Amino acid sequence: MLPTPKKFFVTAGSAEGKNPLNAFDNALLKCRIGNLNLMRVTSILPPGVQYCPGMEIPPGSLVPTAYGYIISDVPGEQIAAAVGVGFSNDSFGVIMEYSGKCGSQEAERAIESMLKEAFETRNMELAGTKIAATEHRVEKIGCALAAVPLWY
Amino acid sequence: MLPTPKKFFVTAGSAEGKNPLNAFDNALLKCRIGNLNLMRVTSILPPGVQYCPGMEIPPGSLVPTAYGYIISDVPGEQIAAAVGVGFSNDSFGVIMEYSGKCGSQEAERAIESMLKEAFETRNMELAGTKIAATEHRVEKIGCALAAVPLWY
Amino acid sequence: MLPTPKKFFVTAGSAEGKNPLNAFDNALLKCRIGNLNLMRVTSILPPGVQYCPGMEIPPGSLVPTAYGYIISDVPGEQIAAAVGVGFSNDSFGVIMEYSGKCGSQEAERAIESMLKEAFETRNMELAGTKIAATEHRVEKIGCALAAVPLWY
Repeated sequence: MLPTPKKFFVTAGSAEGKNPLNAFDNALLKCRIGNLNLMRVTSILPPGVQYCPGMEIPPGSLVPTAYGYIISDVPGEQIAAAVGVGFSNDSFGVIMEYSGKCGSQEAERAIESMLKEAFETRNMELAGTKIAATEHRVEKIGCALAAVPLWY
Repeated sequence: MLPTPKKFFVTAGSAEGKNPLNAFDNALLKCRIGNLNLMRVTSILPPGVQYCPGMEIPPGSLVPTAYGYIISDVPGEQIAAAVGVGFSNDSFGVIMEYSGKCGSQEAERAIESMLKEAFETRNMELAGTKIAATEHRVEKIGCALAAVPLWY
Repeated sequence: MLPTPKKFFVTAGSAEGKNPLNAFDNALLKCRIGNLNLMRVTSILPPGVQYCPGMEIPPGSLVPTAYGYIISDVPGEQIAAAVGVGFSNDSFGVIMEYSGKCGSQEAERAIESMLKEAFETRNMELAGTKIAATEHRVEKIGCALAAVPLWY
């Protein structure tokens, strides 16, 4: 089997680029995850993982990551992305991602509501949350991105 | 290298949610794969894998999975998703996913046709299939999802 | 942790199919990666990897891969996809993907421009590139796909 991750952090950032993929790449760099090979996952925090906000991961590593993003080429448009981790007291957690044409507060509120529903559906008690959000006013081509990298 | 999976099952389920990602999450829970970290793959059944329908996978595990889904926020709309595994007699198999605004029978027929073409292109004989399908009438925000999780 | 890949190649190909997923599948086969389980990654060439253009990977393997593609069902439309690897002299490289309704030359130029920006942003010198591109005139349903598989 693939080894289950043991560590995580949360991050969010926005950037401009000359084209959509470079805007995405530049937003990843703002989040300090631009030199990694992110493998997108749906989106559970394994039991017992440790929060490591300053973690350094070697370039090119394969990093399971839950993320959400939005790219816009409409100058003046406001975009935002947020991620949130919901913790349980004694079991796994749940990760939710959101992005939209809004501010970061609205994105954070969306995440809180999504985590609440995710825990209600599972009949689990939501013991706490950790949320990261970013907002961006598009100049030419912009990307707002939020991520929960999982690591070892 | 990453270890090649040795087991699989097929699953399909539909659910409502208060927003698109929760509808997706709730559909995953209906499929009994909502507490995993699915890593989406294109879509080969490795040679020699074993069919394990009752398999339990620990929460938070990284699970290579082929899946298809559709989310709709149009009340009254019918949505469906299906997956199918095509088996060969002595080699690997092929997995196909389908989703659309239709019923589960139409989704199943689409899968059968897709598997037939996949085997014809490969000059392989289609020795059998295993298909899972789901259909759903949207109330507010609904998701139909079908998946082939691969495991060890 | 997941093992960091040690080898790579670049590939591009186009194909028709009776439906979108089969067109995608057939394009993967043209690229010689149709019998693998591709796991999509964002898109760094790990330091020290080796270029292995003739590499054979066993069917069903989990293969971290950066790829871009476009599917069209508009007969007569021209579609193209390209990938490019930008190399540094002494560190990791960067992978970029592009797809659009254009020819392969325009796709290649887009990749060159994207790699240039990716290296400028990182304050790294672009020591060389390796690009693969494909173009396709759609008959019924066509897919153009370009990929950088990473392996061990």
